[in-house]
Amino acid sequence: MKTRFITVEGVEGVGKSTNIAVIEEMLRDLGIDYIRTREPGGTGLAENIRSLLLEDHGGKLAALSELLLIFAARADHLEKVIAPALEQGKWVICDRFTDATFAYQGGGRGLPREIIASLESMVQGELRPDLTVILDLNPEIGLERVRRRGELDRIEQETIDFHARVRDCYLDIARREADRCAVIDASVDPDAVRGALQAAVADKLPELR
Amino acid sequence: MKTRFITVEGVEGVGKSTNIAVIEEMLRDLGIDYIRTREPGGTGLAENIRSLLLEDHGGKLAALSELLLIFAARADHLEKVIAPALEQGKWVICDRFTDATFAYQGGGRGLPREIIASLESMVQGELRPDLTVILDLNPEIGLERVRRRGELDRIEQETIDFHARVRDCYLDIARREADRCAVIDASVDPDAVRGALQAAVADKLPELR
Repeated sequence: MKTRFITVEGVEGVGKSTNIAVIEEMLRDLGIDYIRTREPGGTGLAENIRSLLLEDHGGKLAALSELLLIFAARADHLEKVIAPALEQGKWVICDRFTDATFAYQGGGRGLPREIIASLESMVQGELRPDLTVILDLNPEIGLERVRRRGELDRIEQETIDFHARVRDCYLDIARREADRCAVIDASVDPDAVRGALQAAVADKLPELR
Repeated sequence: MKTRFITVEGVEGVGKSTNIAVIEEMLRDLGIDYIRTREPGGTGLAENIRSLLLEDHGGKLAALSELLLIFAARADHLEKVIAPALEQGKWVICDRFTDATFAYQGGGRGLPREIIASLESMVQGELRPDLTVILDLNPEIGLERVRRRGELDRIEQETIDFHARVRDCYLDIARREADRCAVIDASVDPDAVRGALQAAVADKLPELR
């Protein structure tokens, strides 16, 4: 069986963790060997970079600096974790990947798409996810969920307009790359989300049916 | 008087600090307002990135990740320190800048020149130093000096071949950009280095004569 690289995306509080567990269960049921990882993060260095990104710097982090930090983390994660796993025949499920960069740093911060795309080519070469699940939710609802969980990090504290642009950018990616992306309505009850997710994954990756 | 951006480069142990002090003295004698800064570093975030770069990660740091971290630090440093100083009419003396990236990550680690040049354009736009002093020394001598000062960091621990490639790359930059660069022989006694440096700086920047 061909190994697959699956990414899960969405605004804050959309339920990525819960729904990644649903995909993991589908793989385990079929005896598929996989790893679960996340971005930014997944290696010691990349987790350190994640901390730098989520800290409050007592001043604005330059947008371009943030973008380059994210790709620095990604380069390390790809070289040390994702690429080796795929080479060893393992599937990879990643909580956020480059679509998040287009959504947050492109849509959210307004950095030009071409700059992000050039870093994507530099760092990833031809590697792209085989399937990207985009969990879709009004960010006001998502942020309310996050608030109930506790303190907000530097990204979660951004304005509602910022998060609305992130959502729009995700939906735009899904329209432009409909073959790769599955949009799941995350506003309905958890069982309905679970069912829609299972159906969408099986539709995109027939080997999981 | 036009503000100037001066960078000082060279292999480990070449005497950058001592010689930057010589340039500072020249500026002070003429009452020129300036800041002295360094790379990677110069802002809170960039100094944190510097620590990540110099730490031993118990494993190899992916070369591309290292490169992106350096430019992430540079983007922050440029936006928050260098550009504002130049705009306020201050001169800037920077201990290492992008030539170090070409020398260490290009010459030393073998990353393609074009990748570094594309990040240079992305982060700096048209900004380049007005004067770059390249202190030149056989890296075996420089590293011996560093060893006498104490423990070596992750870069200083690289092979002598690595440091020889760094030096060659610096000399190559000086040949290709002779207008901007002044090469100073740092193997002679400190007074002679000082004299050569003062002469070279005054030659390149006539306003300092």
